[in-house]
Amino acid sequence: MKSISYDTSEPIIALASAWGESAVAVLRASGHGCIPLLADCFSRSEALLKAPSHTMVHGVLIDPATGDAVDEVVCAVYRDGRGYTGEEAVEIFSHGSMPGIQLILETLRARGFRDARPGEFTLRAFLNGKIDLTRAEAVGEIISSRSRAAHAMALHRLEGSIFRRIDSFKEGLKKLLAVVEIQLDYPEDEVSAEDLIAEDDILQLKGELETLAATFSTGRLYQEGARVALSGRTNAGKSSLFNLFVREDRSIVSDIHGTTRDFVHEQLSIRGIPVTLYDTAGLRHGETGDTVEREGIRRSGLVTREADLVLYLVDGSTGVRTGELEGLDPGKTLLLWNKADIANGPAPEGFLSVSAVTGEGFALLEEEICRRLSGVKIGADEAVIDSLRQRDLLVRSAESLAQVLEGLDAGMPLDAVTVDLRDAMDALGEITGEVTSAEVLEDMFSRFCVGK
Amino acid sequence: MKSISYDTSEPIIALASAWGESAVAVLRASGHGCIPLLADCFSRSEALLKAPSHTMVHGVLIDPATGDAVDEVVCAVYRDGRGYTGEEAVEIFSHGSMPGIQLILETLRARGFRDARPGEFTLRAFLNGKIDLTRAEAVGEIISSRSRAAHAMALHRLEGSIFRRIDSFKEGLKKLLAVVEIQLDYPEDEVSAEDLIAEDDILQLKGELETLAATFSTGRLYQEGARVALSGRTNAGKSSLFNLFVREDRSIVSDIHGTTRDFVHEQLSIRGIPVTLYDTAGLRHGETGDTVEREGIRRSGLVTREADLVLYLVDGSTGVRTGELEGLDPGKTLLLWNKADIANGPAPEGFLSVSAVTGEGFALLEEEICRRLSGVKIGADEAVIDSLRQRDLLVRSAESLAQVLEGLDAGMPLDAVTVDLRDAMDALGEITGEVTSAEVLEDMFSRFCVGK
Repeated sequence: MKSISYDTSEPIIALASAWGESAVAVLRASGHGCIPLLADCFSRSEALLKAPSHTMVHGVLIDPATGDAVDEVVCAVYRDGRGYTGEEAVEIFSHGSMPGIQLILETLRARGFRDARPGEFTLRAFLNGKIDLTRAEAVGEIISSRSRAAHAMALHRLEGSIFRRIDSFKEGLKKLLAVVEIQLDYPEDEVSAEDLIAEDDILQLKGELETLAATFSTGRLYQEGARVALSGRTNAGKSSLFNLFVREDRSIVSDIHGTTRDFVHEQLSIRGIPVTLYDTAGLRHGETGDTVEREGIRRSGLVTREADLVLYLVDGSTGVRTGELEGLDPGKTLLLWNKADIANGPAPEGFLSVSAVTGEGFALLEEEICRRLSGVKIGADEAVIDSLRQRDLLVRSAESLAQVLEGLDAGMPLDAVTVDLRDAMDALGEITGEVTSAEVLEDMFSRFCVGK
Repeated sequence: MKSISYDTSEPIIALASAWGESAVAVLRASGHGCIPLLADCFSRSEALLKAPSHTMVHGVLIDPATGDAVDEVVCAVYRDGRGYTGEEAVEIFSHGSMPGIQLILETLRARGFRDARPGEFTLRAFLNGKIDLTRAEAVGEIISSRSRAAHAMALHRLEGSIFRRIDSFKEGLKKLLAVVEIQLDYPEDEVSAEDLIAEDDILQLKGELETLAATFSTGRLYQEGARVALSGRTNAGKSSLFNLFVREDRSIVSDIHGTTRDFVHEQLSIRGIPVTLYDTAGLRHGETGDTVEREGIRRSGLVTREADLVLYLVDGSTGVRTGELEGLDPGKTLLLWNKADIANGPAPEGFLSVSAVTGEGFALLEEEICRRLSGVKIGADEAVIDSLRQRDLLVRSAESLAQVLEGLDAGMPLDAVTVDLRDAMDALGEITGEVTSAEVLEDMFSRFCVGK
């Protein structure tokens, strides 16, 4: 791992908005003394030096070495540790010109600012006690979220949902540890571990830790998305259903940005889950010739094998052909009775009836896809984690509690059981960052983008 | 032309920073009543409503329809027409999350904001008298500038360099018109046009207008760049010189963004001029065979024909071969005596001596390229235009003055000459926007980016 040293006494600078031609760019400066440093290259030096916290000062950035104007900007001033970082800070709003942004960065580097490392602003916010580690991770998760559901979950975490859950777990353990540790001070009293520690409390806490740890797969699903493949015989209506999904998709990433469209796959969002939808169009020519058929089957096989869910379409107007459903993996296949509007009969057992033409059954289909992918239904207010680090620590804490339960069953002495209780507590402390190491911080923040 | 209607009484919203995953995104809201509209979906409604101008309020954007949190944001408040637009305005600093930005836009649309049209913020600034049209165009030119020199020139225009030049031209004409128009009120006095209008003054003003109009080609060059091709026989050292240019380039666009590198061309900046440098590497195999040679010559011919400047390299250690220089266009060819460090003799007449290995002559070469491309040397404080609209109006104004001169020579009556003087004045008024039409504004601002 690349080692990153963060000297938090230095004033740092970084572009915080996205890199590109735009109306406005945001550059972030933070660190003790950054206001006077900036004032040295600002046309309205006095106004900047005297600006109260949370006010904006309009002026021209000037290169003090040459006296040349660098850009017309607005500076937002944060004093007395009231910036995002918990330090003195300035946000500079400049024109979104690519050579202009560069020139500003160079001018400020020459004045003594150094380039911020990835995540360094958020790291400083953590080190300065503005946020705990679950909130710090949530900041990164908000930015990289690919769907509204993922964004909402991460925002919920930023508001402290995970922190509060962990805190309540810690409260329970803390009370228990207090009782146990007083007892350990009086070794002459012969009190057994079982007398002090209620097995039911430990069991319940362990269950809650495991439940929260299990939300990780849901968090990942909403953050990373899933692969869904359309499969079925020629003329089963795969392309029509594919187009219906694309049309119904409310994802706006593609609205604005014009994401690449490919005849075989499309990025969309199904009820908040980012989905890559594959149309195994290669099967279209499956019956025209030997070589083409083999290539089609090979391609389709690759896609369905990699998929998290396969929607297998049968043309309801012609019905299921003999042997057609053999070899499908029931664990990840959803059978669809397509062309329900012109079908010869109702959907057979196990099939969902849909019509790509009339839209019939589409809402149910989306719901079923969601249910099959996530396994669970997530309420808006539920805390869902999306950090492997948090998941591992929750598991470690639950495992320590399992050791406690084993110790109680085996009639182990109180001090031995206490070691496991403390372990469970420490793992929770690592989640929020009370107990943490430089390595963990380096690893976590190096995955952030620069400027955050 | 697509017609764009700007209803300036409506509150508008747009993403102003670049679209992409980033630490911070900026959304711009402007228009009468936009602060209370925003307060309806802000956690700290009262704080926002009471915030003085140029202060920042931290809070959570909330969808009033659902009560759900939309994002944690900071709002910068501008009151009493003190925003960029000359209106009540708010800038919202949100997380740079792509689904998050979308959600904010949707929430605000539902509250009554409409999407801003391209350039609408700057158009409002113009309509509200905050900036003239030369400054408005400069804003767009700053954003789209591709080199530091272009950025500096545009910034200079934003600071009013063109406006002041035009204003001084208008002052001269205004005085003249005042004298002439008083005279026209007393037709009984028989005063000739020649008596009132000094031919020298008109000649001088006409010259100044033409000089400023001529800076357009320089402005374009710095904004749009030039094509420079390296040409010469195999082993003349084209690739070494190519690499030296790439290495010396201080352009930072490629530093950050990782622009595509291609073995035949490279984007760089030579003394502030954005240059696409072509290496006619196709000539390398020029002597190995008939077909390859023809293809090489064809490709090289295409590149040199399209180029604004051709650097023709001769290997100084072997000298000029007979007939080698035939067919070169002297108007756009710069002859280079390469490998000066190991050359058999000094550079022949008309050649510039360089060494791609030692770097000898490279500074002079850059200077000469610059001189050849721009034709003129641009001082840092000189006003340079980069707007075809401004160029055409300057030319129209100068042409009207030419008519005035003709009229004077022909002994035309005062009122006839006055018509041309007024024309010259009107053209200048159009440049700054005192006299302007809806069509001109629509055309100009529709070429801006959204959010500006």
